Formats: sequence, C-alpha cells, structure tokens
Amino acid sequence: MPLSPEITKSIEDAVAKNFKDEIAFVQKMVQYGGQRGEEHEALDELYHQYTSRGYDTTRLEMDQQVLSQHSGAGRFSDTHSKAPVVIGVHKPKSSIPGGKSLILNGHIDIVPNGPKELWTHDPYSGIIEGDWLYGRGSGDMRAGAVANLYALDALRSIGKQPASKVIIESVPEEESTGNGTMATHLAGYTADAVLIPEPTNEELVRANVGVVWFKVAVAGRPVHVLKAKEGSNAIESIWKIVGGLKELEKEMNDQKKGRLYFEHMASPINLNVAMIQGGDWASSVPAWCTIDCRVALFPGVTAQEVADKIERKVAEVSKTDSFLRDSPAKVSWNGFFAEGYVLEPGSEAEELLKTVHQQVTGAELTSMTMPAYLDTRIFALEQKIPALCYGPIGESLHGFDERVSISSIQRVTTTIALFIAEWCGLEDIAS
Amino acid sequence: MPLSPEITKSIEDAVAKNFKDEIAFVQKMVQYGGQRGEEHEALDELYHQYTSRGYDTTRLEMDQQVLSQHSGAGRFSDTHSKAPVVIGVHKPKSSIPGGKSLILNGHIDIVPNGPKELWTHDPYSGIIEGDWLYGRGSGDMRAGAVANLYALDALRSIGKQPASKVIIESVPEEESTGNGTMATHLAGYTADAVLIPEPTNEELVRANVGVVWFKVAVAGRPVHVLKAKEGSNAIESIWKIVGGLKELEKEMNDQKKGRLYFEHMASPINLNVAMIQGGDWASSVPAWCTIDCRVALFPGVTAQEVADKIERKVAEVSKTDSFLRDSPAKVSWNGFFAEGYVLEPGSEAEELLKTVHQQVTGAELTSMTMPAYLDTRIFALEQKIPALCYGPIGESLHGFDERVSISSIQRVTTTIALFIAEWCGLEDIAS
Repeated sequence: MPLSPEITKSIEDAVAKNFKDEIAFVQKMVQYGGQRGEEHEALDELYHQYTSRGYDTTRLEMDQQVLSQHSGAGRFSDTHSKAPVVIGVHKPKSSIPGGKSLILNGHIDIVPNGPKELWTHDPYSGIIEGDWLYGRGSGDMRAGAVANLYALDALRSIGKQPASKVIIESVPEEESTGNGTMATHLAGYTADAVLIPEPTNEELVRANVGVVWFKVAVAGRPVHVLKAKEGSNAIESIWKIVGGLKELEKEMNDQKKGRLYFEHMASPINLNVAMIQGGDWASSVPAWCTIDCRVALFPGVTAQEVADKIERKVAEVSKTDSFLRDSPAKVSWNGFFAEGYVLEPGSEAEELLKTVHQQVTGAELTSMTMPAYLDTRIFALEQKIPALCYGPIGESLHGFDERVSISSIQRVTTTIALFIAEWCGLEDIAS
Repeated sequence: MPLSPEITKSIEDAVAKNFKDEIAFVQKMVQYGGQRGEEHEALDELYHQYTSRGYDTTRLEMDQQVLSQHSGAGRFSDTHSKAPVVIGVHKPKSSIPGGKSLILNGHIDIVPNGPKELWTHDPYSGIIEGDWLYGRGSGDMRAGAVANLYALDALRSIGKQPASKVIIESVPEEESTGNGTMATHLAGYTADAVLIPEPTNEELVRANVGVVWFKVAVAGRPVHVLKAKEGSNAIESIWKIVGGLKELEKEMNDQKKGRLYFEHMASPINLNVAMIQGGDWASSVPAWCTIDCRVALFPGVTAQEVADKIERKVAEVSKTDSFLRDSPAKVSWNGFFAEGYVLEPGSEAEELLKTVHQQVTGAELTSMTMPAYLDTRIFALEQKIPALCYGPIGESLHGFDERVSISSIQRVTTTIALFIAEWCGLEDIAS
C-alpha cells in the first residue's frame, strides 16, 4: 500500500534531521579501520548500536565445519577472519505481520590499503571534503551498512517501526569468501526480500559474476646463478602459467556472446594476477614462486567448472616447461568459490524499489551488471528471494582515496527507509 | 726454493693425520649455520681458533662511512651484516722474512636455504655420505676457510711455521656486497699474494665477472578488480621491465665477442630475476611490485657503466607503458657494485700453485672462467697482487643438498700447505 504523501514527507525529513549524526557515525565506522580478521571493534560497535535500539542481537560464528559442507562457501585459509556476524532482529508487535519481511545486509570487512603514500589522507581518516567522505571502506561499504541502521532510525523518529520482521546483518568476509552471509543463510536467517546497499552508484544490480580465488605455487630447482641456465627460475616458470591463465581469461570472455547482461561489456571476466611472491636471494636462481589470483565467472557457470578449467590450463602449461613437466605447478583454492546470479526482473520488491528511487531522486532506476563479487548471490541462488543490491555513489573502491558521496548516502538512506515502510508496513511504536 | 721430498712428504702426512679433526671442524662450522647478519657465532669460533694458535687476532668492523667512500664497495641496505671480519696474523720470528707474505682469505657468510622440503637432510646437518659432506655453506665456502687454517696447522704439526707474514681472513658479506674483504683492504691488510679456496673444483680462476645487485620498484594505480582495465597492474608492469632487462642481458652477452676468457661460454652474463613481491589482495589490482635482480659484467666494464645501462633501459621501458610513463619504475642499488678481473697468467704465485697442484693431484692445473662474484677481485683490482682463487670440489652451491667432496678438501689442504711452505718459506717453531 503506497505511503501517504504526509508519511513520505515525514520520513524524508526524519532522515534529513538525523543525517548529521549518520555521517558522523559513518566517519566513526571508517575510523575503526580493521583489516581482515580485525573487524571485532567495528562489529562490537554495531552490536552495541543494535542492542541499544532494542533489536534482538546475536553474534554468529562462521563455523568452518558447517561452512565446508556447502559447495558455495568460500575456502578457508590461515587468513580467514574469526570475527562474528552481528545480526539484529526487529520483531513487530503484532503476531500477524503488517507487511513482508526484509533482510538489510551490509559487509563490515574492508580490503587492504596498498601503499599509504598513495593516499592523500590517512586511509582511515573519514575526512570530509565537499560532498565526499574519504577512507578505506567508506563506500565499500560501511556507509551502506550505516544507511541500513539509520533508515530504521528514521521510522523510529516519527514514532513508527516496521510492521514485519526486519533482520539487519553486518557481516565480515564479503571481500574474500562470502562466508559471513553464507553463515547467516546456513543458520536459517531468511526473509521475503533482501537489500544490500553496496556502492552501486544508485543503480540496481541486474546481473553479477561469480568469483573464484586461487593460488598457484611453483617450486624450481635452486642453483647458483652461475648455473642459471641449468636451474629452473621459479619466477619465470610462473610467468608462463600467467600466460596460460591470460589465454583462459580470453576464452572465458569470448563466451559473453549471447549473454544478455554481459555481451555489451568489453571484458566482463577479469583474471587478476593480484599477488606474487618468490625467491630468497639475488644471486640464487629462485626456487619458489606463488601467485594469488581472482577470476570471475558468468552466472550459470559453477565455481567447480571454472576450477577444473584452471587446473587443466595450469597442467597444460606445466607440460610445456622442462622443469614444470617433472614438478608441475600446484593450484589451491583459498577464498571465493562462488557462482554469479541474474536478478529476475519484475519482482514486487524491484518494482517497489523503482518507485521509491524515483520518488527520492526524481530519476528512473537504471540497472547494471556488476563484474565483481556480491553477497547478494547467496540470497538469489540459495534462498531464491528478490535480492536487491543498490547503494550510494562510491569511487576508487579498493583503490587509494576511496570515497563515498555524502548527498548520495542521504538519498539512499531515504530510499531504504521508504522501501522498508512500504515493504514491511508500519506500526506505531507507542503501545 | 723447492721443498725437499722429505719435507713435502711430512707435510702431506701431517694433513692426513689431522684430517679427521679437520672434517669434524668443517661439520661444526656448517652446523653453526647463520644467515646474513647472523654470522657472529661462526666468526667467534674462528676468532677463538686463531687466538688459541697464537695468531694476532682482530675483529674488524665493516664501517659504512668508510666503505661508502669506495666506488667498488657494495651498497648498504637494511639487510647488511653487522658481523665483524676476523683476521689472524702470523708473524715470523725473524725480522727478515724467509720468503714472501701471503693472505689466506675465506668467506663465512652463506646464502639462504630455499624451501627446506627440497633438502634431503637439514640444511645445516653437515652429514657425511660417502665422499660428500652436506650442508649450506659446506662447499661455499666454510670447507675452504677451514682448509686455510688446517694448512697452517699441518706445518705446525711438523714443528714448522711460515717464515713470512701470513694473514688469515674470515669475512662476511662475500655473497652480497664484498664489503668484508673490502674492509680488510681499506684497513691496509695486504701481502705479496692471496689465495682464496672457493669451491672451484680444483681449478684456478683465470677470469671473473663483476656483479651488480639492484631493485626495481613499480607503483601502480590500485583499483577494484571490476575496473581492472582502468587501473595499472603493477605486477604486469614490472614484467614489462623484466622483458627490457632480458634484452639488456642479451646485448651484454653479445659483447662476449673477442673476450678471451668469455667468448667460449654460451651465456657468461646472467641477469637473474631473483626475488619478486607485489600486491596485497586477490580482488584488488596490485598497486606495487618490486623485483630484486643480479647481473654480471665483463672485466674492464665498470659497475657504474652497467648501472647506467640498467637505468636507461628501465626508463625506456617505462616510456612504453601508459601508467609507467607518468610514474616510472624506480631503480636502486642494494648490494654488489663490483667489477670483474682477469688473472694475468705467469705470475710466480701461479707457477708455484701449478707445481704443488701437480704434486698433490698428479694432474695439470687447469683454469676456468667464473661467471659469479668473487672477493678475489678486490686483491686483483685494488691491490694488484696475484690473486689465486682455487679450492675444493663442490656441488649444488646456492642450491639444495649443497655438498663438498671430502677427498678434495684433503687435496686442497695439502696443496695450500705446500704452497705456504714454498711461498713463505719455513722456520722452526722451537726457538
């Protein structure tokens, strides 16, 4: 049931009124920093925020044994976070809900900063310049996680609350395995729809690639550099493997043909040679080298299929190298093992988002293809619920001087608040 | 003056008699281990051994300020060893020496072990199997350093000592800068000849390349992998630099033409891409990458000339890359900055070595070109004294399962002892 113009206006005003606080809280969240495995402090803060608002709040562990049963869970490694998922549950007063239930999901984990000298300010400054709030995780996606919370707060400000169940989830591991959100799924948390305010520039994600992480390790025959031509240089050998993987990337991109949401993209499948490490001594031929890579996959292609392709390609290249023939490169899986998804157009949830987006921004909601991992896939593929990924304008995500647009946060918070109000219905807080 | 057959025989016998002890001491020295900067324990042992034999023993510091004045000194970095050079000086009884003076030099530093699982035994086992003694540094060159000591001991066993000054030097940093031996030179230690028993397979080094170490650092524009085609992948950029350096290696090898001791070699100049490190996160385009390299240079070519070539090549490649054009790769020098040398044939010292080598082994002394760094260059180039590099049979130097031939150690110890006896003359220990 559409909201009355008065309610709409009062929700918009409530977001505006709380907005100074909201931005201060985004800054605070950015200033917590916390690389992979160090998200406890930021999550404790959210735990406190959720409980102080009366949500039924839980810390959910990412249990390796449980997660390992699921083919779509990310693969564990030594660097896997042990931080909990923080989940707040709002239950309506009435046992008969006044609308549909909703999950508001956001990830709290962030990616490394890279060389600090490439940042204009401290990576965790949270500094504001004009319409931009700067810092690692500002756009991706602590602003979105905060918007979820402040959208609910806006309703509270006008004496209202959702008339259906709302689950607000702050998860770690979205940048590496997806195991935070996967843990919520395996623990049974679900709803009639989910909204994840990733920094999508106020567009709706229509289609999303899957992602697989892997490591390739080569061990060479170390000799003194005076015998360089006899030994196997592990760094040079691994570069042959990279050549093979680049061929695979090309083959995979060639398969964009006929794929509705991907055909228009120059290169939807990126294979990123992201980390490399090898050798011990300048005057020894390097005996070992490893690379860490990330590759995307089209929706409908399983992670296992791509993993098999990678195994085959690495084995194929190994056969062409005199050393690797006897001692082939080894592939292991150390993160994402995730399929992509397509959001079926026309769901009631999407139609509602279109309406409120237009109300708030005055523009039509456009959709886009996201060539990077999103936790949304867990809801789309596993729970088969409308999974809306839609959030503020962000720039330089994973890069230096990452930033998020402040006016966009306000628009998105308003959109989420109106979405909740219509999707879940409203009831008075005062009994 | 040639030794009498009786004296010769008694020296040979003395080496043989002490040989069980000598090998046990080589094992002990191998078992000390001690990577770069951790040579103190092995050097303390030698200090103790030298003093207990009555040599005038000194610990000489490698003074950065002093060394930095010399163009041929290695460049300092954080990993430079702070271990001392240990120098023992034997002075003859008489103020009028009975022969010529001699330096016996050996390096105590060792190179990294590489992956331990590629070793059959612990890298520092010192284990003996058949004629082989195994362990990092066994061949390169603690066996040689021990042979220097036991050659003098053999003379002592028959109641004799050199009738001229003998300086025995145990140096660190031979594997990285040459600054141990350079420090002895700058401190004024010199003699009429030097012998360094590196593992040369009982051949004499006739010619030796110079070596330069350098690091190349690239900083890219880090972005989320979803924008992979916009960001600059620092790992891929550095691989372009490697391509340029490989061209340079080829150009430098092409200049072997007409070089007497190098023309016959397939590839005397090796450019070793030895260490690589880059990137922080599988789903971020890597923002930085570094490589550590080592390149050889022909005698007569200065390190500065080669350094200039490297700088030019890196700048040239940087110009071809859209990112590196604005933010060029940076080159720095972090180790060897050394010229090579040719040992002028026909010196009295060489003739003597030929004679005693034939006496001990029954074979003619052959000579060879060494395409790896040797401290001998400091004596050849700076002190212009006959600089003989000649030592035992070693295998897998810098590789795994490094080993040295035990029978070869005995032959070389005998050769050194006879060389000392003739070069320095002998005098009775008893007064």
